[in-house]
Amino acid sequence: MGDIGFAIGQIPPAAADVLQGRAAFTTHPKIFLGTFIHSRSLTELEYLHNAAVAVDAEGLIVAIEKDLDLSTPSLTRSAAHSLLSKLNWDDSSSSVEITSTNPSKSQFFFPGFIDTHLHASQYPNVGIFGNSTLLDWLNTYTFPLEASLQDQAKARKVYTRVIRKTLSHGTTTAAYYATIDVPSTNLLADLCLSFGQRALVGRVCMDQLGPDYYLDASPEDSLAATEATIAHCRKIDPSFGLVKPIITPRFAPACSAPLMKSLGELAAATNLPIQTHISENVNEIALVKSLFPWQEIGARDDSYAAVYDAFGLLTEKTILAHAVHLTEDEASLVAERKAKVSHCPCSNSAITSGAAKVRWLLERGIPTGLGTDMSGGYSPSVLEAARHAVLVSRHLAMPDAGGEEKDKLSVEEVLFLATRGGAEVVDMKGRVGGFEVGMEWDAQLIGLGEEEEEEEEDQGNVDVFGWENWEEKVAKWVYNGDDRNTKKVWVKGRLVHQRK
Amino acid sequence: MGDIGFAIGQIPPAAADVLQGRAAFTTHPKIFLGTFIHSRSLTELEYLHNAAVAVDAEGLIVAIEKDLDLSTPSLTRSAAHSLLSKLNWDDSSSSVEITSTNPSKSQFFFPGFIDTHLHASQYPNVGIFGNSTLLDWLNTYTFPLEASLQDQAKARKVYTRVIRKTLSHGTTTAAYYATIDVPSTNLLADLCLSFGQRALVGRVCMDQLGPDYYLDASPEDSLAATEATIAHCRKIDPSFGLVKPIITPRFAPACSAPLMKSLGELAAATNLPIQTHISENVNEIALVKSLFPWQEIGARDDSYAAVYDAFGLLTEKTILAHAVHLTEDEASLVAERKAKVSHCPCSNSAITSGAAKVRWLLERGIPTGLGTDMSGGYSPSVLEAARHAVLVSRHLAMPDAGGEEKDKLSVEEVLFLATRGGAEVVDMKGRVGGFEVGMEWDAQLIGLGEEEEEEEEDQGNVDVFGWENWEEKVAKWVYNGDDRNTKKVWVKGRLVHQRK
Repeated sequence: MGDIGFAIGQIPPAAADVLQGRAAFTTHPKIFLGTFIHSRSLTELEYLHNAAVAVDAEGLIVAIEKDLDLSTPSLTRSAAHSLLSKLNWDDSSSSVEITSTNPSKSQFFFPGFIDTHLHASQYPNVGIFGNSTLLDWLNTYTFPLEASLQDQAKARKVYTRVIRKTLSHGTTTAAYYATIDVPSTNLLADLCLSFGQRALVGRVCMDQLGPDYYLDASPEDSLAATEATIAHCRKIDPSFGLVKPIITPRFAPACSAPLMKSLGELAAATNLPIQTHISENVNEIALVKSLFPWQEIGARDDSYAAVYDAFGLLTEKTILAHAVHLTEDEASLVAERKAKVSHCPCSNSAITSGAAKVRWLLERGIPTGLGTDMSGGYSPSVLEAARHAVLVSRHLAMPDAGGEEKDKLSVEEVLFLATRGGAEVVDMKGRVGGFEVGMEWDAQLIGLGEEEEEEEEDQGNVDVFGWENWEEKVAKWVYNGDDRNTKKVWVKGRLVHQRK
Repeated sequence: MGDIGFAIGQIPPAAADVLQGRAAFTTHPKIFLGTFIHSRSLTELEYLHNAAVAVDAEGLIVAIEKDLDLSTPSLTRSAAHSLLSKLNWDDSSSSVEITSTNPSKSQFFFPGFIDTHLHASQYPNVGIFGNSTLLDWLNTYTFPLEASLQDQAKARKVYTRVIRKTLSHGTTTAAYYATIDVPSTNLLADLCLSFGQRALVGRVCMDQLGPDYYLDASPEDSLAATEATIAHCRKIDPSFGLVKPIITPRFAPACSAPLMKSLGELAAATNLPIQTHISENVNEIALVKSLFPWQEIGARDDSYAAVYDAFGLLTEKTILAHAVHLTEDEASLVAERKAKVSHCPCSNSAITSGAAKVRWLLERGIPTGLGTDMSGGYSPSVLEAARHAVLVSRHLAMPDAGGEEKDKLSVEEVLFLATRGGAEVVDMKGRVGGFEVGMEWDAQLIGLGEEEEEEEEDQGNVDVFGWENWEEKVAKWVYNGDDRNTKKVWVKGRLVHQRK
């Protein structure tokens, strides 16, 4: 790794940083040196070479220094010391940990990924969907598995694996659907806190459409169960510093009008975020129209978005997964309400939902992030979601699709969606997703393969020949990178994953 | 690994099997036991559990035994000994090597993948294509790199890496484009032989369209250079047992009519295979029409396929890469001539070429395989190409695309394309791509991750929970598998790759 190999004060073993229980959120101050890459805007990455970032014990970025001379280990040490002095961080007492990127291994720091939509409970089914589409997929594959997680031991096994797996892919924040079960949803929250992953944890609300064995008994029961998981999150993380509850009507067809109404009221009363699905599949849209006659529910028109809006579920803290087939009017409504969209390209392609028009959403001012949507999506990796966002955008731009050149998303744009875009979607804009003073250190150390290293460790499929510029290295990472390139991961300043 | 840990006669270290030079093609006889999975037909995989396959010193499958009792190591040894007796293979002298799958690690043998189209010379550019499309991509990224491989040291580095990389992903046969340069094309053939990868190696013929610094000087020079590389392959592998030359007009726009005519004649005289591109991009198609007025060249109509046909380049040994925008008439012509198609989904999506209609090709009786098309495609993995073939087929089936449910390709179908389909495309039907007596042992040992193993080695992203059936395990492999799941690879009976 890129550690320059000297200690200031007492440096704890990295793994000790991972919370094993409900420990306090403080960690050891840290200084990071070397190359930092993050989104400056939708279309532009900023490449900060020879820089240093200081992170305090609460995980906040307190200083960023640029244009340092880090050309030798000794100069790097000097730069770290200068920064320590400047910050009045006492070498002897503060246990400051220093990490620097290794230029010869094409290492760089990158903001942690934000997975704006995934079903933790469906993780064992990734890759298992056959030729199904949404509604039959739910009945065949999804509901039986979700129901089975009422078994706490099974839930612990599944949730542990999904957290570890997503952390290993650099996902520092995840917006999780759990199941309808309160204890196992609470367990997911406990485990996120324990592993140190920032998370929105949602108990799934559904009082219709599902099979008898997997339904909330009534709107009242559904609301009470949701309130119980909110109370649990408040107990284990009172400030919601790491784990926050999210109100989760599964999707309109699975929720009765009284249930949606009470969840809208709950959101208004608590100011909590909301997550749901919208307009993923054409049959689903037809189903929504038939289930919720718009005049009866007082909606402004007969659209899917208007149903949520009628129940107070379209807020500036609402995450709408998919939004594949939104109409122009719906997009206006979503934009007006300042709701956000989670684009899930792997899922939309895999279960033949459609190709979401991300450029079109962005042009309408709708903040958009990326979701793996496991297990509609098969991959745990937001990097793979970014890659597929590029590819799906190209399918939209293909001659037969009647698209335009401008529909294509670039490498820079999908990395924005994966970080700053996602941060806005999960209501954490300005808090995570980039490297700025005042933001929290949710980050990953990326290393790309070089020929010289082939013998020592498995570097994955990014093959750097040495003549690439940084833009090309980043493109190679986006297209062929995987968890082997994610060497270390931090959330809120704490090391939460490290490759062996 | 799944070796059951006993030796019959003298077992050489596995790595010794990899030819390090121009050694003879014989190897040690081998017996494989356990689970074998391969395509029985386009739509059906055969799962052979408790089976044994015997492979002779020439790499031929000489026996397949089914319904054995392999429930314990001891019974597995007995089964191996019985098969040895049956074959009259003398334990004491034949140095038979035994490998069995480990059921607790979800291991199985699968036919090696066949990459029916890739540019070895473009490997350093994988992932680097920006927002370009075919014709500007060639000029910006491709021609400069290909030209630079005239430097033998650079060519050796690039070709070594691409062979090692594709072998590590289970590619046992590759249809390679090299460059226009004779010595470096010959070097690619040498290296394939040296590493033991089955290959079609093509010197690129192009006497127009390219930049001045990267063109054959004349049709005569182009033909002579091609003949030189054919002679070289004949010298190093007289029976073309492993490495075979392939006549390679880059694509119609880069070849003059006299050049294509002479290459057609060369193909007829030598009975060698041909590879080229067809109908990848709409601008390319327009360019072909303008460059080759059909009446002037005596084509049967003004289509792209008719141009190749007019020059004798549409044969039953022709591999046509892409075929994205073929017309109904062209498909009839291709089918009539028994030419084959290499479907390259990663490439077609990445550089916005279009979505090739594989179901439509198959329905017209056109044999189809998969190609990574590096570096138009970014991934070295045929497994990833298979995954993308599924996804692209779903884009074709989406409501907005006007497709149908039947356009979707299944996991079983894309695995057929990756093995038996590819074998037909490279004119090796019945020789590789499946497990049958009389076929050659081109195979890979696949192992999927299980929780218990997490600590001992990196198992990749296929997460088996233990309750999956074999069909589900295979689906998980197709969607989340990578080179970490490819534990060993054999070509013609010889071990050519083994994960550390």
